[in-house]
Amino acid sequence: MKPFDVIGLDADDTLWHSEDSFHAGEMKFVELVSPYVSEGIDVKAALTAVERKNLHTFGYGVKAFGLSAVEAAITISEGRVPTSVIGQLVEMIRATLTEPVRLLPHVPEVLAEIGRHYRLVLITKGDLIHQTFKVETSGLAHHFEHVEILLEKDPRAYQRVLDDRGIDPTTFCMVGNSVRSDILPVMAIGGTAVHVPYPLLWELEHVDHDEHFAELGSITELPAWLGL
Amino acid sequence: MKPFDVIGLDADDTLWHSEDSFHAGEMKFVELVSPYVSEGIDVKAALTAVERKNLHTFGYGVKAFGLSAVEAAITISEGRVPTSVIGQLVEMIRATLTEPVRLLPHVPEVLAEIGRHYRLVLITKGDLIHQTFKVETSGLAHHFEHVEILLEKDPRAYQRVLDDRGIDPTTFCMVGNSVRSDILPVMAIGGTAVHVPYPLLWELEHVDHDEHFAELGSITELPAWLGL
Repeated sequence: MKPFDVIGLDADDTLWHSEDSFHAGEMKFVELVSPYVSEGIDVKAALTAVERKNLHTFGYGVKAFGLSAVEAAITISEGRVPTSVIGQLVEMIRATLTEPVRLLPHVPEVLAEIGRHYRLVLITKGDLIHQTFKVETSGLAHHFEHVEILLEKDPRAYQRVLDDRGIDPTTFCMVGNSVRSDILPVMAIGGTAVHVPYPLLWELEHVDHDEHFAELGSITELPAWLGL
Repeated sequence: MKPFDVIGLDADDTLWHSEDSFHAGEMKFVELVSPYVSEGIDVKAALTAVERKNLHTFGYGVKAFGLSAVEAAITISEGRVPTSVIGQLVEMIRATLTEPVRLLPHVPEVLAEIGRHYRLVLITKGDLIHQTFKVETSGLAHHFEHVEILLEKDPRAYQRVLDDRGIDPTTFCMVGNSVRSDILPVMAIGGTAVHVPYPLLWELEHVDHDEHFAELGSITELPAWLGL
């Protein structure tokens, strides 16, 4: 007997690379802005603090990161950053939004195999246009009976997605790289969750917890874990 | 007999004011940036051109407007705009994202009345966090059996929303202020649409057409139009 009816999959850093682009963007920000910042200021920490301050208003995703980067560049340089650098920050956002999707290894084969046995839904959060572009250009959209782009991955949001599709949480298993967004909220509503870590994790996704859940070394181990 | 089973309602400029904020933002942009721009440049037209260029990459909504405004300020001033002005543009975006919802007249009573006779769905597009905040803080969310925030309001997107909820387009009527986004795509999939114009329309929403459809002077006329 199959242990679940429906498998939910996170997208960023679960199906394709994402955080490495943000990390490269942060490094680029430090490189571009540092020359205009007084000695003794931690440029990277200040950028993260501005992102944290703006998270509730700007939300997740690349455009939110871009607006926070512009704000942080001006404030931490006390206005000394030249407009040419601000222009480069906006260009960086545009480049990220149009960068081709880079799938993680063996993702298409894994989805094909589990898709033969389970209903698959993709549940992600972030910027509506960016996430939609990535899903559409990934070549993976046909594996999923539904794609949901959420504002926040909390228990209430997961419950609504499952209710909407008539899925009992006890028959649902979520697979993702973020304990905070993919694992704990699904367990909180009575579902199962499998953690597949990505080498990088955004600081604002860090969470302390003492829950127990399955952890796989890579998504290639998922079919075997599901007994396939 | 009721002519429809389900009424879809647009949100921005149909249930609450929106375009007037964007219009005020554009005027503020012109005021802030014009002092640094060479004579003979149409500042407002240049801003709209940058928005149009970026629409496919940045999408709709306030954050997209903000990034386009920063880019336009730098390019049309040839970099002469001071960072203090760029900072003010980012603050303007933050202010718009947190501004309280301003309902259009009699919207709560109209929704209460038509909600007694019809299933209601809210179908909007734009920024995920901004639209969600507006729906949640409007006090109107309980009237709707479903809220859908789309990337683009085209026939394919409407068809998917209706399919998802088992709604036959011939039993569906959409109410909104944009002929391009609320009327023509719904008629294209066999639904009915009612136009309720708002005094302002964003230039990128303008469309030429020769379709015929009902037009109401305000949403207060909707119950009578539905025979209630």
